Parts: sequence; structure tokens; C-alpha cells
Amino acid sequence: MSDELRESCGVIAVCGNPEAANLVYLGLYALQHRGQESCGIVSRSENRLRVAKEMGLVADAFDRQKLLQLIGDSAVGHVRYSTTGDTRIENAQPILVDCAKGSIAVAHNGNLINSPDIRADLERRGSIFQSTSDSETIIHLIAKSRAARITDAIVDALSRLKGAYSLIILTQEAMIAARDPKGFRPLVLGKLGDGWAIASETCAFDLIGAEYLREIEAGEVIMIKNGRLKSYFPFPQRKKSQCVFELIYFSRPDSTVFGKPAHTVRKGFGAMLAKESGVHGDVVIPVPDSGICAAIGYSSESGVFREKGFARNHYVGRTFIEPKQSIRYFGVKLKLNPIRDVVQNKEVIVVDDSIVRGTTCKKINDMLRSAGAKAIHYAVSSPPYRHPCIYGIDTPSEGELVANANSIEETRKYIGADTLSYLSIEGMLSVLGDEAKDYCTACFAGKYPVVHRLPKASQFDLFKYSSINIR
Amino acid sequence: MSDELRESCGVIAVCGNPEAANLVYLGLYALQHRGQESCGIVSRSENRLRVAKEMGLVADAFDRQKLLQLIGDSAVGHVRYSTTGDTRIENAQPILVDCAKGSIAVAHNGNLINSPDIRADLERRGSIFQSTSDSETIIHLIAKSRAARITDAIVDALSRLKGAYSLIILTQEAMIAARDPKGFRPLVLGKLGDGWAIASETCAFDLIGAEYLREIEAGEVIMIKNGRLKSYFPFPQRKKSQCVFELIYFSRPDSTVFGKPAHTVRKGFGAMLAKESGVHGDVVIPVPDSGICAAIGYSSESGVFREKGFARNHYVGRTFIEPKQSIRYFGVKLKLNPIRDVVQNKEVIVVDDSIVRGTTCKKINDMLRSAGAKAIHYAVSSPPYRHPCIYGIDTPSEGELVANANSIEETRKYIGADTLSYLSIEGMLSVLGDEAKDYCTACFAGKYPVVHRLPKASQFDLFKYSSINIR
Amino acid sequence: MSDELRESCGVIAVCGNPEAANLVYLGLYALQHRGQESCGIVSRSENRLRVAKEMGLVADAFDRQKLLQLIGDSAVGHVRYSTTGDTRIENAQPILVDCAKGSIAVAHNGNLINSPDIRADLERRGSIFQSTSDSETIIHLIAKSRAARITDAIVDALSRLKGAYSLIILTQEAMIAARDPKGFRPLVLGKLGDGWAIASETCAFDLIGAEYLREIEAGEVIMIKNGRLKSYFPFPQRKKSQCVFELIYFSRPDSTVFGKPAHTVRKGFGAMLAKESGVHGDVVIPVPDSGICAAIGYSSESGVFREKGFARNHYVGRTFIEPKQSIRYFGVKLKLNPIRDVVQNKEVIVVDDSIVRGTTCKKINDMLRSAGAKAIHYAVSSPPYRHPCIYGIDTPSEGELVANANSIEETRKYIGADTLSYLSIEGMLSVLGDEAKDYCTACFAGKYPVVHRLPKASQFDLFKYSSINIR
Amino acid sequence: MSDELRESCGVIAVCGNPEAANLVYLGLYALQHRGQESCGIVSRSENRLRVAKEMGLVADAFDRQKLLQLIGDSAVGHVRYSTTGDTRIENAQPILVDCAKGSIAVAHNGNLINSPDIRADLERRGSIFQSTSDSETIIHLIAKSRAARITDAIVDALSRLKGAYSLIILTQEAMIAARDPKGFRPLVLGKLGDGWAIASETCAFDLIGAEYLREIEAGEVIMIKNGRLKSYFPFPQRKKSQCVFELIYFSRPDSTVFGKPAHTVRKGFGAMLAKESGVHGDVVIPVPDSGICAAIGYSSESGVFREKGFARNHYVGRTFIEPKQSIRYFGVKLKLNPIRDVVQNKEVIVVDDSIVRGTTCKKINDMLRSAGAKAIHYAVSSPPYRHPCIYGIDTPSEGELVANANSIEETRKYIGADTLSYLSIEGMLSVLGDEAKDYCTACFAGKYPVVHRLPKASQFDLFKYSSINIR
Repeated sequence: MSDELRESCGVIAVCGNPEAANLVYLGLYALQHRGQESCGIVSRSENRLRVAKEMGLVADAFDRQKLLQLIGDSAVGHVRYSTTGDTRIENAQPILVDCAKGSIAVAHNGNLINSPDIRADLERRGSIFQSTSDSETIIHLIAKSRAARITDAIVDALSRLKGAYSLIILTQEAMIAARDPKGFRPLVLGKLGDGWAIASETCAFDLIGAEYLREIEAGEVIMIKNGRLKSYFPFPQRKKSQCVFELIYFSRPDSTVFGKPAHTVRKGFGAMLAKESGVHGDVVIPVPDSGICAAIGYSSESGVFREKGFARNHYVGRTFIEPKQSIRYFGVKLKLNPIRDVVQNKEVIVVDDSIVRGTTCKKINDMLRSAGAKAIHYAVSSPPYRHPCIYGIDTPSEGELVANANSIEETRKYIGADTLSYLSIEGMLSVLGDEAKDYCTACFAGKYPVVHRLPKASQFDLFKYSSINIR
Repeated sequence: MSDELRESCGVIAVCGNPEAANLVYLGLYALQHRGQESCGIVSRSENRLRVAKEMGLVADAFDRQKLLQLIGDSAVGHVRYSTTGDTRIENAQPILVDCAKGSIAVAHNGNLINSPDIRADLERRGSIFQSTSDSETIIHLIAKSRAARITDAIVDALSRLKGAYSLIILTQEAMIAARDPKGFRPLVLGKLGDGWAIASETCAFDLIGAEYLREIEAGEVIMIKNGRLKSYFPFPQRKKSQCVFELIYFSRPDSTVFGKPAHTVRKGFGAMLAKESGVHGDVVIPVPDSGICAAIGYSSESGVFREKGFARNHYVGRTFIEPKQSIRYFGVKLKLNPIRDVVQNKEVIVVDDSIVRGTTCKKINDMLRSAGAKAIHYAVSSPPYRHPCIYGIDTPSEGELVANANSIEETRKYIGADTLSYLSIEGMLSVLGDEAKDYCTACFAGKYPVVHRLPKASQFDLFKYSSINIR
Repeated sequence: MSDELRESCGVIAVCGNPEAANLVYLGLYALQHRGQESCGIVSRSENRLRVAKEMGLVADAFDRQKLLQLIGDSAVGHVRYSTTGDTRIENAQPILVDCAKGSIAVAHNGNLINSPDIRADLERRGSIFQSTSDSETIIHLIAKSRAARITDAIVDALSRLKGAYSLIILTQEAMIAARDPKGFRPLVLGKLGDGWAIASETCAFDLIGAEYLREIEAGEVIMIKNGRLKSYFPFPQRKKSQCVFELIYFSRPDSTVFGKPAHTVRKGFGAMLAKESGVHGDVVIPVPDSGICAAIGYSSESGVFREKGFARNHYVGRTFIEPKQSIRYFGVKLKLNPIRDVVQNKEVIVVDDSIVRGTTCKKINDMLRSAGAKAIHYAVSSPPYRHPCIYGIDTPSEGELVANANSIEETRKYIGADTLSYLSIEGMLSVLGDEAKDYCTACFAGKYPVVHRLPKASQFDLFKYSSINIR
Repeated sequence: MSDELRESCGVIAVCGNPEAANLVYLGLYALQHRGQESCGIVSRSENRLRVAKEMGLVADAFDRQKLLQLIGDSAVGHVRYSTTGDTRIENAQPILVDCAKGSIAVAHNGNLINSPDIRADLERRGSIFQSTSDSETIIHLIAKSRAARITDAIVDALSRLKGAYSLIILTQEAMIAARDPKGFRPLVLGKLGDGWAIASETCAFDLIGAEYLREIEAGEVIMIKNGRLKSYFPFPQRKKSQCVFELIYFSRPDSTVFGKPAHTVRKGFGAMLAKESGVHGDVVIPVPDSGICAAIGYSSESGVFREKGFARNHYVGRTFIEPKQSIRYFGVKLKLNPIRDVVQNKEVIVVDDSIVRGTTCKKINDMLRSAGAKAIHYAVSSPPYRHPCIYGIDTPSEGELVANANSIEETRKYIGADTLSYLSIEGMLSVLGDEAKDYCTACFAGKYPVVHRLPKASQFDLFKYSSINIR
């Protein structure tokens, strides 16, 4: 259950539309699953950039009055999730600064693995950092570039970065979008009337009525100025490393990701899992909602009927007060309740998209047994998740990943299932077909396509201050 | 799509537990789907009643500090939805008053059709009303009863009422629960350790760990005092009129309602619909989430594969700001987006639980066609909804119900479907089996089991003041 | 220092003005010193009453949008302070109900000493009470009156009441104002264009631009209907008992109270105090702000120069977090800081309007000595406060009143002054001149002009429930 | 009336106390008059800095939970007022950054007149700016300094600055305080137990119980490390330019400013004004509260009795909704109401501390005449305010200063007074005695002691983006 993993960000931009900020706001809402901690929009009107940022959800943060102040025909927005203890308005994006290149706003999705080095180097050269976000590094490099033209300065800055970035930059004259040469994180291009739209996922286009044109390519830099779009490929071409977990879990099922419809790929994973595992039972039940697509594939392939095994509570709030005499499976039960009539006296095949820590799976299985399930076959539509991501997904440390420290059999025992099946890496790749080679599978296989001597964790040790988020 | 109908309330009580208020709070959260406008809890400790009420959702309204103040081993809670223009804290429940019988708190689910008459009569006799809620009427009648014992006073009061009530009353000495002789709205009894629990639905019991014992019977009055429960049947027995819409839509699928598991009954409705309609297609897609259970039944019966046709946005807020150049299907699109790959070039069978106004269905069908659906067979797992409910469901007026003013063929055209199938009343009843006679089907058939000369609407005209809810 | 006494309420009404609610809102702001716990406004437009109530200050509770909804040319408002533990939105006023006389809103300033009896009697006859406020009693009596005309019903109800009431009642047809026959609490009448204004104090008239006409007389009932005002004196004439503490402390110094300018009377008290005490020193310093007016009189009479002895912090919030190593005189120091240069090596005459508990005076004197004062002559411009008020002022119990349990000499020692002078009752009355007989001096002399067998405290014991104010 | 001028900031620090943040919080509350827009605290515990910042007042921004998170024995705080349209959380201080010198927090009171130049230069060299505050410039210079030791880097940075700064800097090892060589803005040093306190004004020391030791000298840099304090004078000595307006208006009357008790100096100004003007009348009334101290001096010197001419409303909120039929003198009347009995038929001498735009004075005089004043002698305890401050006070532009564009006689007519007297510059200086030469009088005389080619206004034009403050 990938609830324990967090996509770090979502980005969206609109240019050439008189209601740019309002459309970006709706686009952020469509991308809300990519980040729930903070959100922000920068708009541009006649060379002047305006910003509004806030902690919390898009729907709560913006009202009509605020959107009316974000005037102009271009705007860029950002939703963010962040690592624990780091929830600060200072880290909200887009980052808007003044520098020799004028006013610049940057919205970034991804993680820069050499950011601590660059940061240390920039500090040695006198730069100051006001956030813990590695995205601030990018804007420093742009500001410090000796290139005269802003696009050159951006290319100059990007050439120093290692790791993952899907970026949107708004300057006083242009909108620039860029995707790292490995193409870790998604970024798509769309047409919106006479103007343009750029977003992390196509589901944002669907809501605002933009037409999906194509992916922004790995290594591509796009500049939109005076309504015209130019494309650049300033970096040497490299083997692609698209994040396969976008297709497993992160992206919305209605999005087209890396050129593929996410829902269909997930069904493929589920079907391949059924084929590989050969496990049968009385009924297939997905762990809602992340296991639903794969369960459809599993059911289709295995011929086992798919049922609704859990009712969800849709009014989930931030925190709930547990009684002192604590309630069994409290955390999970607040969200899910087994439907007894469906699982009682049944051999159930529980389809989940992944197992991270395993603690939630254990509670789910315990609940299912309490509800009368005769046997539980846990089927996971991705390979064992063994290695932390360093390209923009917030993952628990290696030691916390149940599949890192334990064999499959040990994991099965831990989560309390009768059988436990994972999709194999090969099976997963075969679903992706010819493009299988274009994907990063580091979290499963442990081979990181881009490395840097400093481990990710140390980046935060370098940073010596913390913050309290008031209100 | 029954989003346009609103259950008016949910009730829950716990007695004989040192953390009564905390458990009631969690129970209210499990019943949140029955009312999102206001919530409240009254607790009792040593003959003293304490109250906390608030507009909004349970998770936002209560924090640890507030729950700690609601001391005592008995508590009753209420969630409420209300009619438009009537969102006032004064209408929040439980209603807590002081009267000759001492302090009394009342939590009520249902609608009293003779309330305007009683109210007018009470006013003539000098009573004052501080809310527009008909539940206030009940407490007036209790206070005015000449019966010495509180249970007698309650029976005395209830005997004056016509319509629907599932009530929980907390006094300084006892907890009393009552269900009207027709049994319109559900009410269930559970055991929680040494104490008791009472709730609108069993899903609340599942969360707090109470064991479901049985329904409180139609016409039954239960009194719990000093840990002991007594049951009374003070009214003449009448033919039952349980609300069939609880099984179609209102109750959570994991609840047991009127003794039946809601999910299973819904599957039965879907299967019968498939049998009756005989409509086939390439794929069955439910309107999420209310159509899911019936779609499972439809798919099972028809053999047509069930797919996920829509992605839902789970971050739905209260209001969204639409751009001036309005977005097509805006309201629906904020919640649902078709998954193109699933519906493109397909004959889709869309399974919905009901059609109320029809406007949402029309937008859904338009979206599906935009996403490439070749044909749309709209299949509704309940009969045409033609008559407003007067027993506790907030329904649009007759003229707004698309099935009241239009033939099925006209409705089909209006919602833009290729075919439109409804479950027949007979089909619906056959799924309910022997107990079919115990259900109210007034909204479909128009035969109201309990009537009173005043139409419901006039109740609000009698009331001459309105209120503004500050914050 | 009368910070420890609390005026219970302020009332204001405007009729015959298209912006009635907006003017009432401003009037409430001018009367904010009479109650800071909750505020409310009821407006009337075409026989329909609309209400908005909130906990907190007027400036926070109302915004433009809310005022715009309170349409109509008549409105009544209320600010309230309440006894500890009793801060509930249910107690906010105006109370708006529906009854046989139609919709009625009541705003009440004062305290009804026979309310517990009436309440018990009403409960016996079947009435229910939703608040702990004795004002709810009034509306019950009106509703229960057999009189056909609303004014008759109001007179009927008022004739049952003992104690203090300055009332404004808004019905669907008329505005009625009434003052009890003893005239305990103030109520004034003004002209505002073609319409009328009624308020607790004239300072509200000054802000909204109304012209002060006269007091509403003790025992007078005024009805304004269709723009015309009628005056009634339905009760037998009685000796007046105007609250002398309104002139000592409660009313704003710019108000005309009981026909007298408050500031001038306070100066008179201070001058008489100087005459009686004969105490001299180097400098007169008032305890800000309540001692300022009397200090002017004291200085004028004694010839001792008046200085500013304390700086006030004007940003006082509700609560402040004290360090664990607590700060000396913390509570007082947050508000006041001695100006060292003024008091150092001086014999200071500190003029205060009253001493209630004495704890604050003690801290003030300690601070003054720390700041170098050579001697402290504490001069109080009212007699020793010995007896709790039962007519609408929230007073500590007898035992907490320092002057009740202690001799003047003991009090002097307790508060740490070198001398302590009080104004004598005779001195106070002589300042009031011929009307001295029209004042209630029960808090000083202990002779209560209206009594009832039940002591005030028991009223709250009768009431068996409490409430938690959420947000 | 100096309400139209705004002190830009207040600063406070505590080190060597286990409750440093809590004491800083109280100190900020005592300095709230120096800035009401935003507030912030940075604490240090074991080399780690923690920050909390918020828009709004200190009492609203911090609660116990937040203070508990600001652990450590050293803390620095800041309150800020800012120019219109510039109310952004990004501008709140202390500014906390990471740089080559480690984590550094800066709290700044003052205005740097060469900041735009330095900023442009820094941007040319690649720096980025995230706020419009000139305080950010200081931290950039520190970060860029080649000096190895932090104190040297600070001195290096400060040597580049022109203008006014009273600074407190918290690093991972030390607390540093600095005051510019001209000493424009105040800064004082105190002892608090074994530790130290630094603040803008001594009134903050009084509240937290610190003992005032001395001013931090103009041009002095103080470093506190491991409990020991060192003092440096790294800059060439210069003629002092202490802001005389701190003594006229900004500082609290109970503070000792530039070594002088503010209240006593203000009395001196009032007495000198009385001597110079020779105006007599029936009564002296101060404009509250800023005119009170001078009025005491005026009364004392002239022998004219001082009265309370106005009642103040102490519940002033941010905004009030004015009726459409607007109320006369609305803005002033919300705060002040003349006490009719005091001014009626009197020749009143109104003592004010200054006249800035003159619009408020005009309303005050109009109100006084409406209240019956026979003649109004307006007496101002400072010279005509003719030139904007460029050293840290937010002043209207030259054209808006009534004394800049108009003769005294024209001003008198404009404000509607019978006579208008100002204190002369010579008179003002004579009150200051031997130190008169140490004061800046640029706002009166127009001779700016430190100049720079760029006018202050242009600094904001350089900055190209604006921000919306959400919530």
C-alpha cells in the first residue's frame, strides 16, 4: 500500500490565457495527489510577477479574491509534499526571487542528488539559503550564470545538476520548461486555445480543457515567448530513466504518463501478476483505491470475480483522537472497513500496488480475518520495494522497508497472509514492452542510474535550522 | 446519482463506558455520510449534561481538549444535513434543554409530518421555538407531558407524533431510544463491553468495536438505566414502512440495515436490473461511488466485464472558483474524469443507483462521449424517482424530479443516453424477499404510508425568521 | 480597580433607517465596554426577522457580507459579558424565537432576581429552557401571556418580573423598549433622522450620529410602530434605584447617564474625596483608565499636580504565556508599567475608582515602590465595596470582597499603602445632589431595594447542564 | 498626530536564559507599538536555530505550544511595520539563512539608504533576493564576506552600509548586536540574571525583569559568546544623529531612550511650547494618547488646568464597515469622542505631538466645535514636520506633509484651528541640553546627516514583484 510513499510535487503552467491563474489553480487541484502540504501560484502581468503561497490544500488556500489579484495571462503553480519535520511556508513553491536576470519564479518536481555539493559550493562563494528545498539551488545557479540570455543561463544552471527535475520557470518575458536528460519525472505539453499548458500529468489538462500534445522529452528545454514555442535539446542525449512507480502508483489512473495510459498499464501489471502467481481464490478484492486498477487486470486474467471488499470513509481528516483504551487497527479502520458479507468464509485475493513498511498490510489482513476471511492471498502488482528512491519520492529508509530486511516468506509471515505474491521485475518490464529499457527500477533492483558520492540523507544534516509552522 | 438527495441525520449513543464522548465522536465520524452540516455531542456525568455543538465536519469540530471536557460514561451524538438557507447553529443537535423533567438532550433522525400542527398548537399554548427544526417539537411535548416518569412522558410525547423518528434521548438518569411504529429510519442496538451502543448504522459499531445485537424494532422504546436495558412496545403495532432508499443509497455499504447487508442487497438490485433490462455492452462502469455495488451485481448477472470508467478526485472541497470562460461539465469534472482508454470505442453500460434531477447524468454522459464512448446504456438500480420524500430525506420538489415530469423515453433523451433502463418496483421488491412488504416505496410509487393534511413545504413558511451563520 | 466587576450587557436599537443593522453594529462597538463575550444583531425586513450572533468582539464578529444579509429598516443589538464557565453561544443575545405572538427578539440588560422562581414555575407548566440566561424567562412570559396585543403581553410579562431590566424587543410589527420601575440600568432614547434610536448609553448615539432626546424613564414602556412612538407607564410608580456604579465606573466617561455627564460626576467624586481625606502628596496619579476622571477632580480640589504615573500597553490580548520562572506582578505588568521618573522619590496619591478584591491594587503598589515611590496614598473615589450586586453586575462573592471581610486599616495593610482613603457614602450622595435618593447604593450600604427570597447564586444551581464553547 | 508615521521595527534578544524564547515573546509584546504587521522569533539550542514567524500581533501569533518548540537559551525577536502593499510573510523577520558562516538570523531596525545600490551590485554578482526588505542585503554581505570569523564578517558587511541600523544577529555560536556609527535608532543593553538582554527600548526590560545597563553606543558592536560580552568599536567615530522623533513620539513614555526618560523629555517639550507660544485658554486637552505627556508639561508651565477632552474606544479593530450614508468624522470618531461637558463653551488648548498630513487634526477640531468648543488653540509639541525620514520611519511623501507645502497660517486654516503653535527647532533642542547636537532633525530642518544619490522611493521600483498575503 503506497500510502507510505509520497510524490514530492506537482507542477502546472498556463500561458496566453487571460485567466491563467484561475486555470492553474484548477490544474493544481487536479494534481493535489502529488502534494498536499503546500501550494502556490505565481502570475505574470506586464513584466510583473505576483505570488500567493499557503500551507494546506488548494481548495482551502485560494478564494476568488486571491485569484483576482493574481492577474496576467501567464501563471505557474506548484503543490508540494515534504519530508517530516520540514513543513515550512519557506519551502513552498514556486520560489520567486529578484536577481540580475530580473524576477524569476521556479516550480520544481524532482530531487537533485548533487544539491548538497552545489549548495556547499554556493555558500562558499557567498550565497545564502532561506529554505531547505534543493529547488533553491537551481535559482541560485541561474542567478549566478554568466550567460546573458535567460535561456542560456537556465541551460547553464541545469548542466550543473545531477538527478531529477521537471521544471517550470516563469520570467518577466518568457515561460521555460525543462526535463532532466534521464527524464525521471513526467512533464507534458498541451494546447489551450491560442495559448499553452504544461503540467506534471494530463489529468490537469482534462480538467482545464487543454489538449494533450506530447510529453516534454527527457533533456528538452522549451521556451514560450510572445505566444511562440521553441524547443531545445542542449544536453548530450542519455539513456532514459523514467520512474516506473509513476505508472505503478503515483500518477492518477486517468493520466497518460510517459506516453502510456496509467490505468491500462496497471491492469497489465495485475494481469501479469495473476499469470505469474497462479494463485486462485473465491474473490479478488483490491485495497482501495490504489489496488483497484491492478485488481481489474488480475480478475480479468485469472477469471476470479472481483468484489468490493472494503468500504471507505471519504471524510478523512488530518488527525483523530483515539480513546485511551485503544481501538484495534485504529489507523486503518478510520479509512477502511471490511464488508463482512463479501469476505466471510472466502479465500480472498487481496490486490495491492506495493508493500512498503508492511504495517498497514498487516492491519488489513487482521481486519479481514476478523471479518471471517478463510484464507488471504496477498498479491502485489509490483516487485518487492527494497531501496529508497533518491529522485523525488519520499521513501522510508532502507531499514524500514519490509522487503529490504526480510525474505518474501518472512514478509508473508509478518503481514499475516496465507500466501504472498509479488510481480517479478521481468514481468513488470514485459508489460512495458519495447520501452522497458527507458525506465528506472532502482527501488526494486537497487541499480541507481545516476549516482553522486553524498547519500541523500546528509543533505539535511548540512542544514542547520528548523522551523515551526505557525497556523 | 443520489448526490442530490440528502439523508437528514445520523445518531449514535454510548452508555456505560468511561470514554463515552470519545467513542461517540468516532461513531459520528463513521456516520458522517448521513449529515455534513453540523455535529454535536452531549455527555452525562453524575446527573449533569454537557454539550458541544459546531457547524461543519466531525474531524474539524472536535479536538482532544473539547472531548476531555465532555466527561462522563454516557454520551449521545448527532450529525445533521439541512435544507438550503437553513444552516444555523441553532438547528444543530442534540438539543439540550432544562424542563420540569430535568435536563434532557434529544438527537433525532427523521421528519415529523404533523410537526407544523403541533408547533402551532404549542405556540397557542405559550411555547417558544428557537429553531426551525421539527425535533424541537418533540422536546416540547416531553416537557409538557403530565406523566410523572420520564419514559411515560416520552411515550406520551411520541404518541402525538406522525411521521419518522429514530430518536436517542439522554436524561439525567437514563438513556432512551425510540423508533416510530412504521420504522421509517434505521436504528440499531449494540453491546460495548459492559455498556451499550445505539446508532443509525452498524458501520459506527464496527469502528468503535461494538458488537451488533439487533435492530431496535419499529415502535420499540428502549430505556437503559443503571446499566440495565428494558424494552417497551407502547404503541399499537402497525405495518412497517422501512425506507428502501437506505438500502439503495443512503447507508454505507458495510452497514447492516433493517437486518440486511446493504452491499449484498445493492448487488441484488444490480443483478435484477441486468436480468430485467437485458442490455448488453462491452463494459460495465459504475458511477462512483454510489453505483459500484449495483455494478458488481450487474456484471455478475450479465457476464459483462466491470471496469473503472472514472477517476475520482478525493480532495473535493466546498467550493471551487470557475473561470469566466466556463469549463464544460465543470461541477462534475471537479469530481470525476473518464478514463479514456476504458471507454473509447466501447459500448458502455453505466450503472447508477438513481436519477434525481438528471442534470449530473447528462454531464456524465456528455463527458463519456467526449472520451470516445461509442454507445451509452444508462442502467439505474432503482425505479424512477418520482415523488419527494416526507419522512426525513431532503428531496427536490416534484417539478425538479426528472422522472416525475417526463416519460422514460424523454428522460433518456434529456440525459443523452442511447438506452435507459430502470429497475422495476417489482424487481426491487423481489430482491427484498419476504420482507418486501415492510418497506416504504412512496418515492417511486407515490403512496405515502402516513399522511397529514399539511404538505411538508408549508412547515417552513410558518416559521418567520432566518439566520446567518457567522463563521 | 473595577476591572474585576463586569457590566453584564449593552443594548442598542435603530428603527426607521435603511441601514439599521450597520448602525446597530457601530453602536455595539461603542458599547463594547459593557460586554466582550458575545454579540448579536437581529434585523427586521417586511415582518421577517434575521439574526446573526457570535462569540467575541463586534469588530471580529461582523463583516460587510454579514451586515448586508441583515436587511431591513429596524434592528436591535446586544453585547454580553457572562459569568465564568458560562460562555456559550446559546446565551448570546438577542434571543429570537417563534411563538404565538409571531417572531420576537429580545435584548436584555439587567438581572431578574425572581427568575429562578418563574423558571421553575414555567418548567412545571411545561416550558423548556435552552440557555442559562434569565432573559429567556422574559420571552417565555410574553409567549404565555393571554393578552392579545403584543404590548399588553409584554406589560403582562414585565409585571411578573422582579429586579433589573432595560429591554429592547423587536417584533414583526413594532419595536418596544422598557425599563424596570426602579430604573436600575440605564436606557436612553434618541432621534436619528426620521427614525429612532435606543441605547444603553449616549456614547453609542454620538458614534452613529443620533441626537440624544431623553432617558427612557424608570417604569416606562415605549412602542415604536410605523414610525410613531408611544409611551406607556403601566406600572405603579416606585422609588427609583439607579445604579450608582454606572456613574462610578461602568459607563463611558463621554456618556450622559441618568441625565448626568459621567465624566463630570466622576470629577465631583474625586474632588469630594480630596476634601474628605485631606491627604496631600507630591503628585496625583490615576490608575489608568478608570481612575483618570476622579484624579482630575482630586487634583483640582487638592491643588496637587496630576501626572501620568503609568504607561499602558494597548495591545492587550486574551492570554499571555508566563515563563515558568514567573515574572513579578505579571498580570498587572502586562497592562501597566510605572513611569519611574514620575514616581521616584515622590509621595504619590494613587486615585482609583474602587477596590474590589484588592489583589491588583497590591501589585500596583508593589510596582510603584519598586519604581522608587517614597510613600503611597491610595485614594478611592467610591465607598468600600462590601456587598455583591444582584441587579446585573457580575461581582465576586462577599468573601472575596476585601472590604467586606476587612477593616479599612486591614485593607490598607493588605494592599501595601501608607494611607488608604475612601469616599464616604454621604460624600458620594452629596455629589449627586437632589437626585441622590434615586440611586441604589446596595453594594456599599447593603440595603437591597428589591429583594426576593432566593439568593442569586442558587439560580445557577438550579440549572443542571453546562456547555463547551467550540471555537 | 503621529498615527500617520510608523516606526518600522522593534528588536529584542535574550541570551543565557533557559526560557529565552518565552522572554523574547513578552519583550516583543512590550515593543508591539514599534510594529504590528508581523512578528517572529528565532531561538538557538546546541548550534541549531529554530524559527517561527507570523503576520499579525504577538499575542495572536504565539501560543504555548509554539513557544515550547522554540527551545534553547538564546533567542532573538522582531516586530515589523511595513509600507503599504508590502505586507508579506517573506518580509517578516528575523531573517534566517544558511550560508558559509553557518546558520544566521538577523533582526534589523532601521533603513539602509544605499541598499538599492548594494542590492543591484549583489544581483550582478549572482545573488538572489526573496524579499523586498533591505535587511536581506545585510545578510548577503555577511555571507559574502571573506573574513573568516563571524564578527569580522559582520563588521566587514556593516562597513558597506549607509544609513540606520540597530541590529541583533544570532549565529550558531554567538549573539551579536550592532548600532550604526550615527546611532539613528535606539538599542539598549541589559542584564537578566546570569545572562543578557538587548532591546530597542527599556520598556521591554521592565516587563521581563531585566536590569537596564546602558545604551549600546553608536558604532558599537557587541558580541556575547559563552556568557561573556565583548565590545568593539570597529568604525571611525562620527557625529551622532539620534532620531529626535523617538523622544517626541515613537518610544513608549516609560522607556529611557538615548539615555533620557522619554516622558520627562516630552513634558519638557510641552513646557517649552507653552513658554514659546504664550497661548492661554480655559483648559488644556491632549490628543490621546500621544499628546498626553506634552500636555502635562504645557499645563504645568502655563498654569492652565489639564482635562480629559476625549474618551477613547479601546476595542479598536482593523476595519470597520461604514454605512453608505457616511458618518461624519467616521475614522476619528471610531477612536475618539469629545467629552462635551469638558469642552463646551471653552477655549481649549489641544496639545498634539505633531501634525503630519493634517487630515486627522482637522476632524478632531471639527468634532470639538460640534461639541461646543468656543475656540481651539492647536499646540504642537514638535516643529513643523516637513521632510520625509529616510532612516527607518515610514513617512508620507513630501507632498503629503501639510507643513511642507503650506505656511503655518495655511495649515492653521486647513485644520480649522483659531491659533496654531509649533515648538521651534531651537526650543526643542534646548530641552535636549548638551546632547542636542547628537540628534538628527532632518524631518524638521531638511538637512540629512547621511545621504546617498538614490532617493529612497526608487528602491521599490527596482523590485519587480509583489505578493499577496494569503490569510
